[in-house]
Amino acid sequence: MLRAADAEFGAELAAAVPGLWLGPVEARYLEEPRGRFFGQGGVLAKPSETAQVAGLLRACHGAGVGVVPYGGGTGLVSGQIAPEGPAPVILSLERMAGLRAIDAQSLVIGAGASLQAVQDHAAAVGRRFPLTLASQGTAQIGGCLATNAGGVHVLRYGNARALCLGVEAVLADGTVWNGLTRLRKDNTGYDLRDLLIGAEGTLGVITAAALRLFEPPAVEGVAVFAVPSPAAAVALLGLAQERFAGCVSAFELIARQGLGFLREVGPEVHFPFAVDPDWMVLIELGLPAGMAVEAAFADLFAAAGELVSDAVVAQSGAQAAQIWALRESLPVANRRIGAISSHDISVPVADIPQFVAEATEMLREMGDFRINCFGHVGDGNLHYNVFPAPGRARAEYDDRREAVKRAVHDLVVGGFNGSVSAEHGIGRLKTGDLERYADPAKLSMMRAVKAALDPRGILNPGAVLRG
Amino acid sequence: MLRAADAEFGAELAAAVPGLWLGPVEARYLEEPRGRFFGQGGVLAKPSETAQVAGLLRACHGAGVGVVPYGGGTGLVSGQIAPEGPAPVILSLERMAGLRAIDAQSLVIGAGASLQAVQDHAAAVGRRFPLTLASQGTAQIGGCLATNAGGVHVLRYGNARALCLGVEAVLADGTVWNGLTRLRKDNTGYDLRDLLIGAEGTLGVITAAALRLFEPPAVEGVAVFAVPSPAAAVALLGLAQERFAGCVSAFELIARQGLGFLREVGPEVHFPFAVDPDWMVLIELGLPAGMAVEAAFADLFAAAGELVSDAVVAQSGAQAAQIWALRESLPVANRRIGAISSHDISVPVADIPQFVAEATEMLREMGDFRINCFGHVGDGNLHYNVFPAPGRARAEYDDRREAVKRAVHDLVVGGFNGSVSAEHGIGRLKTGDLERYADPAKLSMMRAVKAALDPRGILNPGAVLRG
Repeated sequence: MLRAADAEFGAELAAAVPGLWLGPVEARYLEEPRGRFFGQGGVLAKPSETAQVAGLLRACHGAGVGVVPYGGGTGLVSGQIAPEGPAPVILSLERMAGLRAIDAQSLVIGAGASLQAVQDHAAAVGRRFPLTLASQGTAQIGGCLATNAGGVHVLRYGNARALCLGVEAVLADGTVWNGLTRLRKDNTGYDLRDLLIGAEGTLGVITAAALRLFEPPAVEGVAVFAVPSPAAAVALLGLAQERFAGCVSAFELIARQGLGFLREVGPEVHFPFAVDPDWMVLIELGLPAGMAVEAAFADLFAAAGELVSDAVVAQSGAQAAQIWALRESLPVANRRIGAISSHDISVPVADIPQFVAEATEMLREMGDFRINCFGHVGDGNLHYNVFPAPGRARAEYDDRREAVKRAVHDLVVGGFNGSVSAEHGIGRLKTGDLERYADPAKLSMMRAVKAALDPRGILNPGAVLRG
Repeated sequence: MLRAADAEFGAELAAAVPGLWLGPVEARYLEEPRGRFFGQGGVLAKPSETAQVAGLLRACHGAGVGVVPYGGGTGLVSGQIAPEGPAPVILSLERMAGLRAIDAQSLVIGAGASLQAVQDHAAAVGRRFPLTLASQGTAQIGGCLATNAGGVHVLRYGNARALCLGVEAVLADGTVWNGLTRLRKDNTGYDLRDLLIGAEGTLGVITAAALRLFEPPAVEGVAVFAVPSPAAAVALLGLAQERFAGCVSAFELIARQGLGFLREVGPEVHFPFAVDPDWMVLIELGLPAGMAVEAAFADLFAAAGELVSDAVVAQSGAQAAQIWALRESLPVANRRIGAISSHDISVPVADIPQFVAEATEMLREMGDFRINCFGHVGDGNLHYNVFPAPGRARAEYDDRREAVKRAVHDLVVGGFNGSVSAEHGIGRLKTGDLERYADPAKLSMMRAVKAALDPRGILNPGAVLRG
């Protein structure tokens, strides 16, 4: 049983770590974007250097006090707030945002830097950090790594894990691991970097990271293609990869329902087609010098035949930004409508059409819903979100929320060997799903690793594993 | 202390796992490519299915008998043979080589399949598995994953870890973990897949893998560029990436000394330039449809100016194969000459020129050596191998071998924060290096993870961690 981070412990902490910023926990550290949960915290700590994080964890480890690491607070599975248990220390990395080093291949930066700041540092040296999320102005790189964030460019560049060369982290007992290698290749021992990445702060606190930078493609362009079905979208992706292997930077599916939500509640966006198509895909190409992006899209359109009914190619950077703004406004519209249940799922890419067909049919039989299905075709990752019928309130569905979630997740796992958390993680929202769907050997291994690296269970207690 | 896999234990094993192929250990399972070490083994087991591997490990776990997993036997750090300690069971995966499933995005195959067989399966469905090693005809995919193998296409496609979607593995106590997901994205819990990959069989035995397949580039070509220095090679890589981001498939450095060794001892190859240049780079481009590879290389050559003195672009598949054959013959020539000490090192890419300059100067002061420096510029990974002067025998340098290795490794780590094993792993050859150079927190974490997942220490005892 953990001890609460009460005033007495706050005083102990202040004495143990001179210079550490400590204060009461403001409400914003206890809220999460979807407003489903409200957390608790006894003490807010804002360290400004790694040694302070080490001192803090050493003290918490000694006293048996829980620590919830806090980044930008944009996580969607309640990994950043703890509604239950003894009040923890909230450990915000926001003051550890400094750039430590940068060259043409990599940069080293504190965990508290926003994803946007990382991208800006890269751009300042003519490079790109390709992790791209709607929340990148607020999300911090430490949190992106802790949750192995995905986003719209995973197809080409991989997820956060693939973009990280090394981490500096503080372990449960306050030991500092300096794993800030800037090497592309290093086969000296176990892959602890990738173990901490995606562990949602339950195995260690990432305090800094070495990140890969990329040359921007010489020629870039964005288009939207109207397609009749998810099957056509998957086939079109295949045609694009045959022609432009390695150069398809994004391939996003958007359902007509998503456009309908935008028309209903905003935000205001530019709609590319006069009549909303049943489905459309946003395609971003990043091509070698010597290619013309218009011709590339025209070639793809011609090859697609009946897979595509219409297409709009952005004629300027401003038009490309408009198209991206539509895509990135979908989650905002979803929140305004208010989902009954949201599902961040993945299946093998080839199974997307069958999954969408089966899930839609299944839900039709379960009640009167609207479904907004969008996401990352190339990753097999769909945000398959279920909403009330027009004119009906979310509260009317309260008694069916669990059944809807269960049915969708059962189909994903049982029917398609898919994942019930493709990119958002487990947090506290999906600990039950993990227990229900994970291979028992995997769960045992996870518990053994957790016990080995955090024997007192102080790191983000209740997240990922329920103890 | 482990028990030896003696005749008595062999009988117990036969009784515990009916149908498991067991026999005496042939010499070929106890040798390694460089002939430095000779292993020992009490019993050879060749399971044909996962359940047999599980039964075997359950029995070994119960009895406290060590198990050395054996793939193709091509590893260069003695991870596959155990010269010391009680005789282990040699667990060869060679009979578990079957293809279980394949589609356009992925395949699932037994760990005992050769890398070449995996590539052939991919080619049969018009796809490519891009892991490429000189030893791919013999190396098995299970061993490639256990060692996180690299090779010549890491620059574009990543190492073995990046190419694996999921694994099936048997844990120390015989538990089977079915982690054979075929998903691009799955954020449900700790990254145990990447923990087992690269663990060299010390945390579990990989019995099958789900692997990513790729569309072959529409247009491909190979060229060699003669460059005056490693600095010019690194600058040329930058120019290539600016033009062809995402499409540079390989970028290999070759020193004049490597060509000299080929001329001295073979194998017979075609030399692209009449006069061997000081340095040359092999460049492979894989471009989108609509591009011409000759024009792309011409563009690069023109942009390179004084960075390049000459270039040969392959005019046919046969010429491309000739160029690749030269590159892949370098390790054979090295073995024929006989290295005093071989170093599989990495540094940040930008530091390659400075490292080569400092290492060369340092060794010049240490004695009369020949140095063959070659490898993967884009990964910062050099094979920096030290040989006897002409006419002198390797044995004459026996007393300086350790000093040479130590000096090179000290420079790599102390001077450049580099790695003393970029792609070959730790095995038993480099356990001392790991202890010497690794961050103490990393070593502690590794030991904690090992103790948690293999508490009796039966899995590949003595490899990676010396107990």
